Amino acid sequence: MNKKIPKNTIKRLSIYLRCLNKIFEEGVTTISSSELGDFLDLNPAQIRKDLSYFGEFGRQGLGYRIDKLRKAIKKIIGITENQNIILIGVGNLGKAILNYNILAKRGFTIVAAFDQDPELIGRIINNIGVFDIKKIKEVISGKDIKCAILTLPPDKIKIIVNDLVEIGIKGFLNFVPITLKLSKEVKIINIDFSSSLESLMYYLQNNSK
Amino acid sequence: MNKKIPKNTIKRLSIYLRCLNKIFEEGVTTISSSELGDFLDLNPAQIRKDLSYFGEFGRQGLGYRIDKLRKAIKKIIGITENQNIILIGVGNLGKAILNYNILAKRGFTIVAAFDQDPELIGRIINNIGVFDIKKIKEVISGKDIKCAILTLPPDKIKIIVNDLVEIGIKGFLNFVPITLKLSKEVKIINIDFSSSLESLMYYLQNNSK
Repeated sequence: MNKKIPKNTIKRLSIYLRCLNKIFEEGVTTISSSELGDFLDLNPAQIRKDLSYFGEFGRQGLGYRIDKLRKAIKKIIGITENQNIILIGVGNLGKAILNYNILAKRGFTIVAAFDQDPELIGRIINNIGVFDIKKIKEVISGKDIKCAILTLPPDKIKIIVNDLVEIGIKGFLNFVPITLKLSKEVKIINIDFSSSLESLMYYLQNNSK
Repeated sequence: MNKKIPKNTIKRLSIYLRCLNKIFEEGVTTISSSELGDFLDLNPAQIRKDLSYFGEFGRQGLGYRIDKLRKAIKKIIGITENQNIILIGVGNLGKAILNYNILAKRGFTIVAAFDQDPELIGRIINNIGVFDIKKIKEVISGKDIKCAILTLPPDKIKIIVNDLVEIGIKGFLNFVPITLKLSKEVKIINIDFSSSLESLMYYLQNNSK
């Protein structure tokens, strides 16, 4: 698995998994790339190409076995087991994410949230405790946490992220509209609402899909 | 401007704009692609390639004039003026977005929010009124609204989106983890937190950037 996998393929794997989970729950056991393409409004050739990066899942004329494909995608993504994650910054967006139960359904458990506001520290939101950011090291110790969701104010983020990397956090889902420069071993995925709106405006103006 | 512009170029335009705005506020007037690349941890050749899709902005050895480049990118994206948008679904995430003032700073004004919950209808959140979803047509009439942010429960979304398209909404920023099939004239950008976390897990597992 040393081939360079396109970013968009990685993104689509999650979309395939979500769709396969739904179909499987409805009792369907096999699916062809064209049926899957039809569900997702994607080109079947694209789907076949995406999955071919990781091995041979389909059988000519028979389609994919859904249970097998689901397990394989989960293994590829690395969510065969539950993943413990933490959240930094319990503002409006942070609270919304703590209350977002779909994450748990998809195998991500937020085990703790952190803030520096004394009004928030000690509160329990959707069964998740809010702790003092200063105590992060002791709170997460021994909990096998690799990822953090960042929803804190931009002026605080750089120091905190460096501290997090030092205590072993290797992945960040970053909602803060700031560009962070991190070492090569650390991976960051940025979600920026206004950038997404700007992309949308571009497509509308240029009438392209 | 009929060339097919890669999706990732469109995304990066917003990132360039955010960085240029920040540098410009600090009093800097010109920047080279390698300086910009250094700020953003991007390859300068990539930056030059991205900007070349839209015309000639740089002068060999002199770099880009920041004011000119900012205006050009804004024009390309279509945010020369303020854009009025609406939000559908005032749950936790919806409320967080209504309170997210960065959107307004970037030229996007949420002029109204909609829900069906009588407890929410009539409330004002961060100066934005929450209206009955049934009255959407009359509320947005004449307000030149092209985009809607979707943060409503998955079971409601299909009917509502069809209604929105009928009354002239052409772009959606969708936070609902569901695949929507829409006509070619309508553009949808999906933001799915758990898919992003899954991508992150993949990268961590495979130690690739």
